[in-house]
Amino acid sequence: MNSFLLSAILAITSLSLTEGATAQKKLFYTKASELGRVGQILPTANLFHRIDTATYPNLPAVVKTLLTQSAGKAFVFTTNSNTIGAKWCVSPRKQSDNLTAINQKGLDLYIKRQGEWVWAGVGRPKANCTEQTIVGDMDNSDKECLLYLPLYDETISLEIGVETGSTIAASASPFKKRVLIYGSSIAQGASASRPGLAYPAMLSRRTGLNFLNLGLSGNAKMHREVADMIVDIPADAYILDCVPNSSPDEIKERTAYLVNSIRKKYPKAPIIMIQSLVREQGNWNNATRERVAAQNQSFQREFDALISKGVKDLYFIKESNFLGTDHEGTVDGTHPNDIGFERFVNVIEPQIEKILKE
Amino acid sequence: MNSFLLSAILAITSLSLTEGATAQKKLFYTKASELGRVGQILPTANLFHRIDTATYPNLPAVVKTLLTQSAGKAFVFTTNSNTIGAKWCVSPRKQSDNLTAINQKGLDLYIKRQGEWVWAGVGRPKANCTEQTIVGDMDNSDKECLLYLPLYDETISLEIGVETGSTIAASASPFKKRVLIYGSSIAQGASASRPGLAYPAMLSRRTGLNFLNLGLSGNAKMHREVADMIVDIPADAYILDCVPNSSPDEIKERTAYLVNSIRKKYPKAPIIMIQSLVREQGNWNNATRERVAAQNQSFQREFDALISKGVKDLYFIKESNFLGTDHEGTVDGTHPNDIGFERFVNVIEPQIEKILKE
Repeated sequence: MNSFLLSAILAITSLSLTEGATAQKKLFYTKASELGRVGQILPTANLFHRIDTATYPNLPAVVKTLLTQSAGKAFVFTTNSNTIGAKWCVSPRKQSDNLTAINQKGLDLYIKRQGEWVWAGVGRPKANCTEQTIVGDMDNSDKECLLYLPLYDETISLEIGVETGSTIAASASPFKKRVLIYGSSIAQGASASRPGLAYPAMLSRRTGLNFLNLGLSGNAKMHREVADMIVDIPADAYILDCVPNSSPDEIKERTAYLVNSIRKKYPKAPIIMIQSLVREQGNWNNATRERVAAQNQSFQREFDALISKGVKDLYFIKESNFLGTDHEGTVDGTHPNDIGFERFVNVIEPQIEKILKE
Repeated sequence: MNSFLLSAILAITSLSLTEGATAQKKLFYTKASELGRVGQILPTANLFHRIDTATYPNLPAVVKTLLTQSAGKAFVFTTNSNTIGAKWCVSPRKQSDNLTAINQKGLDLYIKRQGEWVWAGVGRPKANCTEQTIVGDMDNSDKECLLYLPLYDETISLEIGVETGSTIAASASPFKKRVLIYGSSIAQGASASRPGLAYPAMLSRRTGLNFLNLGLSGNAKMHREVADMIVDIPADAYILDCVPNSSPDEIKERTAYLVNSIRKKYPKAPIIMIQSLVREQGNWNNATRERVAAQNQSFQREFDALISKGVKDLYFIKESNFLGTDHEGTVDGTHPNDIGFERFVNVIEPQIEKILKE
């Protein structure tokens, strides 16, 4: 566990006391480094990166960049403050047309109530650096908080603000075990409206398991260098949701190496191959429809071949109306919107839970 | 009807032939003014405005600005082209943090299949002016198309591109009657992921009725000047979804004037008052929760008073888990995301249809 407990007194002695232009109350701020951590794929020199890319010099450059984005990372803490704010900075990366700024550069806070994570507030980015109240006017009871980081940008710094005189303490990760999701932009979180609605985050809150976001937007192509990195990531199960970014030929050439590498290093960990959701662009675009069908067929063939070669604990989740049947589940024909993600999780969650229980 | 039929030959003689930097095919372009119109609240001098504000000089300035935004407007046409593109320009208005650029400045295309509107593609804004293929690689059958305009920006110009040699013709509005929705940012479409998922647009596609978007972000405050404008808008029914922007006192002071004005001018048209959806900010923020409850109570009291004074054909839709019960239905605690809108429409659609059938 990377998280640790801070005494309540730390709150009073801690760090910067800031009168922010946008914060509505005088808060005192605690650095994220002092709080509990969620979503750590591997230990990193930079608190907000997913992988320390200096360790993997041969990765494709674009993959290295994506690994600096904070998708799936979150901090956990308890506080009795009636107001929670944040100061955070992100890179000046341009806003994507299919994402809200809250998804790409914002924060998303949940607080636990009777065992359930109940949404509490977002940090709405106003510039590269923002200081803001996320939620106020609460009571002063102890609250267990889970704050998600931006999905599609590099987080540069983060401090959590609570009211002067209140307590704040790191808490332990609330999620058990480790399930790595290696996937595309869809796994990274495009196009959830906010960070907590990325599907790995939804799966964690629903199941209590620690789903780790290794979504690599546009670049989950099963590169050999990425496969060699993945085997360095210890996990209790591995989900491969990388079909959307891989051509049928890439799937044919690369799937066996990735699966066999994981199987060799982790002989018993379930490996779950997921077909691509249907691209709604293919409602009318025949070429798109045929391409996705060919990708999914290629992945199925690779699965069948691996099974016939005796690979154990290998599972397959077949595309089955992942996005429903009304064609409304995407923002742009490729990336699920929140309807799409909800439907996708409703289909895959029971299948994943069943596999993990076996 | 403002729409009219163009002969197929128009396509061949029409307008500009452009080799676009971003368009993938050589398309020829037809101005939006030559196509069928959907969502016209009143005739306007500017094709893309919702109301001609020059007619209403006393409106609050911010309301005038909002009426220039193209929320709810759409164009309808038929084409046998296998590619459909667009060239469009919007204002340089800053991107909102809780909207995608596709919602705010983009286009959203549906094509009819066996009586159902099936999503086809979006126009993804790349700058103030964009030229882009929306969908390609289709077959050459005749297609009935419905193209929604940006929800949160002023549309400056729009041309539709189809393949050289193919046909394009205006079609008549596919939606019957007129149901005016006077509402807040939520009615205007925040925060649907794309224009076709604003709730008035969803209601139209689901019911076949012509729901007109008079959503005025942040400013549906039942101003007297706005009420006086609304009575100039002929409709078969009036939906008042303006609670989110009005304080309890404003609701008390202004509701009767608005309802009575409509009733006087349109003695038989149903008037449907809808309570505000719960703000998910109020999950933890006690002040927000209490404020929304007070707004809704105030609206209920006004309804009861109007009924007791004998106002006929007045209906009330009570908040009843409009956004579901898992607290995940908003982007920011106020504005529904696509999950929220789907749940909201699932609750209100049958109630509205029942009222309109009476």
